[in-house]
Amino acid sequence: MTATFEIRPAKPSDTGLILGFIKSLAEYEKLSHEVTATEEQLHKNLFEHKYAEVVIGYHKESDASEEVPVGFALFFHNFSTFVGKPGIYLEDLFVLKEYRGFGYGKKLLTHLAQLAIDRDCGRYEWVVLDWNEPSIAFYKALGAQPQKQWIIQRVDGKALDNLANM
Amino acid sequence: MTATFEIRPAKPSDTGLILGFIKSLAEYEKLSHEVTATEEQLHKNLFEHKYAEVVIGYHKESDASEEVPVGFALFFHNFSTFVGKPGIYLEDLFVLKEYRGFGYGKKLLTHLAQLAIDRDCGRYEWVVLDWNEPSIAFYKALGAQPQKQWIIQRVDGKALDNLANM
Repeated sequence: MTATFEIRPAKPSDTGLILGFIKSLAEYEKLSHEVTATEEQLHKNLFEHKYAEVVIGYHKESDASEEVPVGFALFFHNFSTFVGKPGIYLEDLFVLKEYRGFGYGKKLLTHLAQLAIDRDCGRYEWVVLDWNEPSIAFYKALGAQPQKQWIIQRVDGKALDNLANM
Repeated sequence: MTATFEIRPAKPSDTGLILGFIKSLAEYEKLSHEVTATEEQLHKNLFEHKYAEVVIGYHKESDASEEVPVGFALFFHNFSTFVGKPGIYLEDLFVLKEYRGFGYGKKLLTHLAQLAIDRDCGRYEWVVLDWNEPSIAFYKALGAQPQKQWIIQRVDGKALDNLANM
């Protein structure tokens, strides 16, 4: 198969597609029950408030007339006070099962590394589950440094209401 | 001592003050060697590009005519695809040594919890160094859940250039 892969920023009309990818990712992680996002919320928070950005990867076979959206990456800018610059934080990366093995995930990852450089970002970061050895090895090969000394602290739901009133 | 504590958003003219707080925090964390931020970078990235927001805490003694800026919190919006909403990520929180013990750190923390609710955020998060037992115990008492299963992966410097070209 000869095919091309192109990465482009998502448009508001891609909201349904993005929600589909999020649901597929959740299913893959056996976490579908945690997905409460709606198309309306995503449209508002991604394309009106612009809290995060999305790029979509399109696969097109040489003998096909139409391209197929096969994966996405959702990211936002974080900030390092020590370097005084923004960074890029990759929240989600996903490629449809039928299109894995072509290096599309890596292409989405490196695309954002270039974007981090273009935007004068000091760091490019994401998180990985500590038991996910294949991914940890893959990220190591890509030059990522695990920051094991930092523990993420999270407050949500009722605990967030409680904290606001302490 | 009778004193008041007020939290207000930082203004562009506070850039030097913010850099001072960042340097003091780095010293406390034994990470001064990692600080490369300049006032110019901070001014551009916080007040022109607005990659992050800063609030400053002011202490004022009842018999004093002037208030004193004694601490700060720097935060930005992250994003959860599963809940389809932004969150608040607290990057830095610091109170000058001479003004600790009055609960000002907690007031800065709860101020942002309320802001997270006001802005319809799903989560409020930050990180802590694994050796910082007093802070870990403090955060636990505030209702934060440590996400020990997640390891932050970071790419920067030459490794970022390499990844962009892979």
